[in-house]
Order: sequence, then structure tokens, then C-alpha cells
Amino acid sequence: LSTNNHSSARDRETIEQLINILRPQLGDENILSDPNECWTYGYDNSRLHCCPDLVVFPRTHEEVQVIVQACHDLLIPLVARGRGTGTTGAAVPIRHGVVLSTEKMDRVIEVDPLNRLMIVQPGVLNETVQQTAKEFGFFWPPDPSSASVCSIGGNLAHNSAGPRAIKYGTARENTLGLRAVTGQAKAIQTGFYTTKGTVGFDLTRLLIGSEGTLAVITEATLKLIPLPETKSLMRAIYKTMQAAAQAVMRIMQQPVIPCALEFIDTACVNLIRENSSISLPPDANALLLIEVDGMRAAMPDSLQAIRDCAQAPELIAIDTANTPQAVTQLWQVRKALSPLLRDIAPKKINEDIVVPVSHLAEFIEHTQFLAEQYQIQIVNFGHAGNGNIHVNLLIDPNDPQQTKNADDCLREVFALTLKMRGTLSGEHGIGIAKSAFLTDAIEPNALALMQQIKRVFDPKMILNPGKIFSSSEQNT
Amino acid sequence: LSTNNHSSARDRETIEQLINILRPQLGDENILSDPNECWTYGYDNSRLHCCPDLVVFPRTHEEVQVIVQACHDLLIPLVARGRGTGTTGAAVPIRHGVVLSTEKMDRVIEVDPLNRLMIVQPGVLNETVQQTAKEFGFFWPPDPSSASVCSIGGNLAHNSAGPRAIKYGTARENTLGLRAVTGQAKAIQTGFYTTKGTVGFDLTRLLIGSEGTLAVITEATLKLIPLPETKSLMRAIYKTMQAAAQAVMRIMQQPVIPCALEFIDTACVNLIRENSSISLPPDANALLLIEVDGMRAAMPDSLQAIRDCAQAPELIAIDTANTPQAVTQLWQVRKALSPLLRDIAPKKINEDIVVPVSHLAEFIEHTQFLAEQYQIQIVNFGHAGNGNIHVNLLIDPNDPQQTKNADDCLREVFALTLKMRGTLSGEHGIGIAKSAFLTDAIEPNALALMQQIKRVFDPKMILNPGKIFSSSEQNT
Repeated sequence: LSTNNHSSARDRETIEQLINILRPQLGDENILSDPNECWTYGYDNSRLHCCPDLVVFPRTHEEVQVIVQACHDLLIPLVARGRGTGTTGAAVPIRHGVVLSTEKMDRVIEVDPLNRLMIVQPGVLNETVQQTAKEFGFFWPPDPSSASVCSIGGNLAHNSAGPRAIKYGTARENTLGLRAVTGQAKAIQTGFYTTKGTVGFDLTRLLIGSEGTLAVITEATLKLIPLPETKSLMRAIYKTMQAAAQAVMRIMQQPVIPCALEFIDTACVNLIRENSSISLPPDANALLLIEVDGMRAAMPDSLQAIRDCAQAPELIAIDTANTPQAVTQLWQVRKALSPLLRDIAPKKINEDIVVPVSHLAEFIEHTQFLAEQYQIQIVNFGHAGNGNIHVNLLIDPNDPQQTKNADDCLREVFALTLKMRGTLSGEHGIGIAKSAFLTDAIEPNALALMQQIKRVFDPKMILNPGKIFSSSEQNT
Repeated sequence: LSTNNHSSARDRETIEQLINILRPQLGDENILSDPNECWTYGYDNSRLHCCPDLVVFPRTHEEVQVIVQACHDLLIPLVARGRGTGTTGAAVPIRHGVVLSTEKMDRVIEVDPLNRLMIVQPGVLNETVQQTAKEFGFFWPPDPSSASVCSIGGNLAHNSAGPRAIKYGTARENTLGLRAVTGQAKAIQTGFYTTKGTVGFDLTRLLIGSEGTLAVITEATLKLIPLPETKSLMRAIYKTMQAAAQAVMRIMQQPVIPCALEFIDTACVNLIRENSSISLPPDANALLLIEVDGMRAAMPDSLQAIRDCAQAPELIAIDTANTPQAVTQLWQVRKALSPLLRDIAPKKINEDIVVPVSHLAEFIEHTQFLAEQYQIQIVNFGHAGNGNIHVNLLIDPNDPQQTKNADDCLREVFALTLKMRGTLSGEHGIGIAKSAFLTDAIEPNALALMQQIKRVFDPKMILNPGKIFSSSEQNT
């Protein structure tokens, strides 16, 4: 990606015009135009970068509307940005223009425990939502691993989830309504203040997962769930990934639905063995971490049900954590992975494809075949219960041959995913990283409808241009 | 509504042309054109009626596509119809034209227990889905009271739910993907075969609840849930609706989320007392039916938790059903209601508004004030946990004054609902019965977007014209 400071096509004069419109509304302290200051707002966790011409920090719905209106009138691209923890480049302003940071839209507007909901601005962190909800005995199901640093706006833009989705669903299942500003600077209110409603088309779910291409979300009404009475964690160690995957299927078919069902494959196990002090049995080739929540009185039976499902000749050990210390210890393997991967391969490619659970083992096996073929280390872990696999390609980005191999390998990973009736992304979205593959994943008629819907919300194509759909489709 | 047999504007010749196109594709046995035969396809459970010019019975996605294409080319209105159990007139062909009955699209295409899903044609009955799922240890959460006679296509068109929505969600939360034919006769595939996915815009949820105005659904991929180990039913009888509503709020704030939490108000209790042999305490004014599912071992604690929430000075009795006979007996009151209402007021108006749970008692109280003001008997029951109230106006439709009063009264019911941040429909939809109130429920910008989306899917406005949006907005 180009890293020049400003768009050559967009002249500085237009940006000055924009600043003049916005300054009286936002105040100088909420506008950045110095390229050095704008710089950090040009990246996200994809490590792609493109410097915006301007960064603005609205505090209210009304200020967002003023900003979108001005960008609309002056035909300036606008990218809404949470905390930049996304991995697909969705928040990178590839056409320069304005980055609208929601950092200062960080108010919890309303907590309504009687109706089990919370209204927040998009810049509120996921962790803040969880902590606020907890005070009233509730939680909000989406729990990405970046919860402490990612914003609700970003969670909604990408339909983010995390381990709990297996039992409680994603952002789409846990958001009642939205307030937003479309690409035409129209203020809209979608959805309901109630947990049921069928009145007109579902614009709420249409905006969730649309990666900021249809509207800028300014408020979200989140559905809250009562905290379970208790939780328990189990760890099952297997000789083969195949046996672990079979156990996952058995677990998913019985009534004790875990609130997390994570797996770690052979390559991960080897990585941990070679690079950490964590001790694992020598014949361990796959791990499952299974968390069960519910009533205290049901826990012995629930854990027994899981234990029964976990049984297999290839099961080496199954442990249950009964104390907070034991829980920490069992999670240790999983938690050690991310920093380990960062150390070993600082520029790893982290995909989040989904396959039907019945294809989990076959998919993992095939990645090891690809790893050999392309001479790239591939390690897999993720949310087994949903078939959501974080495929990590550990490459040296300074080695051009390996970069090319990684591209070819990824193409095969995606093709295999789709062949298995899987999905290119479970929780990260498309952004720019996967937009070239969109036509493989969505058939032409559905894709055409999406692009027409895009034009309905944003006829001048100013909102996050070049994202999701390949860039040829956009005209800003 | 007009009940003339055929549209005066649409000439018989066009219909003949249509028949000539469809006959070789569908066969004579799948086309009805005799007005006497078409007649029964002109109604739904709203008791509105309008005779279609033609009724067709496709068996496959491809046949649906042929039918939509022909209607598109000849500009003939097309209404998709499940089993006509809807209450809003959504399936009534008010502009005549073609009724596409999904009766013969009744195949369960695939059951995939390993991936916990089922693919069905839209004409499959809800009950068939439940029975088929049960064989594999699963259920599909939406359970309208018409389950034995309503189709999945209709459930999806109206985002139908039922008691279980309180814990398991509605059709929107339990459908992974759809196959459909748009108003331009384009075949589309939406959503995923997996339980997670964030790739492009959510067309699945956009179609669910769109009442056949965007596309004709030809296949649905339903997400299945494992059947719980056990279920228990409790009945709590209160001296006041206020006390019952307070109990509902307490129940909703703790971790034992019931799988049904139904209520019956004072007017219903009186009705039952006066018209049935069911015995209820003399000071009973409100009833709650609370069903809890989960692990057997947790049941005593779960029921105790509910009992604790139910406690109040106004609680008269709380009973738990421990045998199937006892369950039947406790449900008896609720089950007696519908036939009773049909007997007393065969043309009752049955609304399904939703208010935030915290306003439940206040809303019910206000309906009794309205009942007195308008001299109309109003009885309320419904899904208390979601605040979803079936407001029943028992009127004599042959009394013009009462009919006028009912209209005025309903207007106040809807205004009150919206004032309480409620929703006009929880599970029935808008159809024609509530389309005049749509502009009160949805703000103009969101409404304009919906209408533009309608034009994207159905530019010639042939699909279910005159529904949801008021008729002035349509042009067929």
C-alpha cells in the first residue's frame, strides 16, 4: 500500500475547506491535520497503513452527522475507526480522506437492568460493557480476545464474537437496535428497545458486519444476558486431531452446550513444547479446552456428560479445574500461544475461516499438507464448536519467495474452505485483506444486491471506500 | 376489501398468457384458475379476503424462478403463501394476480446432525421440522402456537417466534442461510452453512421478516439446538397483575432463564372463570406459567430460584407440575383461552404488541381503562418475558359503533405502545392490518431506506404489493 502522506488526487484545498466547516462544530482539539499526528490513525492490526488527510474526534451523534454531511458534500472518503484492533485493513484509509475516530464517543448512555439492555456509544470498550453489565449481574456475549482494547463500534462493524459465540451467539444475535448516520448524512434509528420485534426490514443486522461501508454507528442498544451461577473448565489432551474433532462433534450434539470449546492443533502443541516451559505429554497432538457454565447443582452431571463425549482410545488425559488457580493453569497453554506466535513470527498471517464442524479434522490435516508443499509453518487453533479456525501462517515477510508461497497457500486454504461449504471469515470480516476472494464466497446475484444496497445507503460511495467489495466496484 | 373475483384492471388476456407460459413447466395439476378453486387461496387468518386470478404450486426452486420471471415480465402481482395462518393479511392477494402456494414445496432436503442444521423447503410445516429434528435429539426454537399447521416459509416471512423466544430467540437468531428468488427473478443464496460468518451484508436477516416483499424463499438452512435433558412447569397465581409483572422482571434478571414465561391478565382470568369449569381462587387476578428446561440435577435449584423470584405478598399459590398429567393440567388455563375467545368473539382482533418488560403492568392496566372508555372487552395474555402482549379486542363486527370504537381504541393501544418505547408487532408482522401505523413506528429516514431496498430487490414492485408499506408507496 502507498504510504504517501496525502492523496495526490485530492487537493489540500478541499481538506482546508473541510477543516473550516468542522472547526466551529468540533473545536480545534477534536481535529488532527498534521501528518505526524494523523500517522497513527492510518493503520490497524493488519499492519497495512495509509495516512489519512484528517482525523476527527466527534463526541455525539450530531457531530458525526455534521462530519458525514461535510464529507458527502465535498466527496471526501470517510473511514470510521474504533481502536484499530481489526486484522483485515478495514479501518485503514486506503483512499486517504478522513478518519473518524470514535475514541471520544465513549459514554455508556443508559443501563436498563429491568429490561436487560444497555445503550452505548460506539467508542465504549468491550471490557467496559462487560464491567458495567457485571455490576448488574449481566454480560454481553461477544468476547473477542482483544476485549480490553477493542470498541463496541468495531465489534459491530465486524460482527465480532469470540469463544462464547458457541452458546450465546455473535454481535448480530445480541444487539437490539442501532442509531447511525448513512453515507448521505441521514440520521437513522434501527431495531427496537424490546427483545422481540418484526416491523419492516431488519436494518440492524444489515449494518452489523457491514464494516462501516453503509453508515457510521453512533449508538447501540445491546441485549444483556444474566451471568451464569458458575463456570467450570476442562482440558482434554488427545493423541490425534482426528480424535479431538470427533469429540467436538459429540459434545455439540448433546444438551450441555459449552460456553467455550477451543482447540489447539498438533503444530501448536509442538510450538508450545519447543518454545515454552509448559509440560505436555510426549504423544499429545491436540488439545481441547471446554468451558461449561450453568447452575452449580448441575455441574457434576454436566462435566460428566462432557467427559463421556470426550472419551476415545486416543484421549491421553482430561482434567477439570476446580480452583481459579487451576483454571489459570489450564488456560495457560491457550494464552501462551498468541505471545509465542508474535515472538516467533511477528508478521504472521492470521486467518479466521470457518468450516462445518464435521470437516474440522480433515481441514486441519490438509493445512499440514499445504505447509509441507509451500514450505510454510502453519499452526491452527480456534473456536472448535463453531468450526472457526484461526489458521496462522508463520512467514518471514522479508523473504519474497515465502511471501509468494504464502499467497498461493492462502488461496488454497480459502478454496478448500469453500469446497467444504465453509466461510471465509467467522469474526474478522473482509476489509481489504480478503476482498479479492469475495466473488468466490458470494454468488454474483447476492453480491450485486449487496452493492446496490451499498448505493442506497451511500450513493456517493464515501464510506470506507475499497472495503469488502474489490476496489474496481467503488468510485470515490 | 373488495371481493370481486378478478382485478378489473388486469385483463384476462394477460392471465391467459401467464398460464400458457407456466403450463408446460408446472403441469395442469399445479395451476388453479377457476375462481371457485382459487377462492380459498384469497384469505389468511386476518379474515380479509381477495380472490387471486391464479394459484400455482411449484415444487422446486427452479419452478419458483420460472413463475417469478413470468410475473415480472407480465407485471403481475405475486403473493407467496404458506398455510395462511398469518393474522395481518400479509398473504391476502389484495391486488389479485398470482398466489404462489408453497404447499408442494414440503421436502426436508437435508438433515446434518453433525453440523446441527437442517435444510428445508418453505412449505415444510413447523411441526414436521420439530419432529424431524427430535429424531436426532434436536429442536428448532421458533414454536408459534400454530406449529402443527404453519409453514417454515411463513415463520421466516414474519420472523415468527412463540414462547421459547424468551430463551432461544426468534427465526432471525435460528436461521443460517436462505435460497430465494428476488422480484427480478434472480436466484440468490444468502448466509452460511456454518454457525458463524461475517462475509458481506446480512441478506438472510434482511429477508426474514420481510413478508414476501423482497424475495420468495425457496430453501432455508435452520440452526438446530440439542433438546434439553428435562423440563418443568410452574404456575403462579397472583392477586394483582402488578405483582405478577414484578415477578416477571425478577425472573428475567437472574440466571435461570425460563424457556417459556407466559402470562394471563385479570380479564382473561374472569373470562375463564365465567366460561369454563376450570377452578381458580376467587381473588386470582393474574397467572404466570413458567417453564424451565435444563439438566435434571439442576432442576430443584432452578425451580427454587424461580419460586424465590415469584414470592410476593400478592402471590396466592405457586404449583409445580411433576408429571405429564400435572403439566397438562397447569397448561389447561392457557390452552382453554384460544377456543374460549373464538367461541365468545369469533371475530376478535388479536394484536401482538411488545412493551419493555418494565412497562408490562402499566400497559395492561391502561388497556382496562381503554376497555371502559370504548366499551370494548379487552383481554390480554402472552409472552411476558419478552413483553410481548396479545391484546385481544372482543368485538361484534356487525355493530358499526363497536367497529369504529375498536379502531379508535387500537390507535390508542399502538400510541401507548410506542410511547413506552415498545414495538407494534412481536411476531405477527405488519401485513395490511398495521401498515397504516408504520410511519408511527419507523422514523422517515429508516423507512425511506427500507423502501429503496424494496426497489433493489423488486424494482417492478410485483412481490406482495401493498404490504408492510402503505399502499400509496407501491406502484403495481
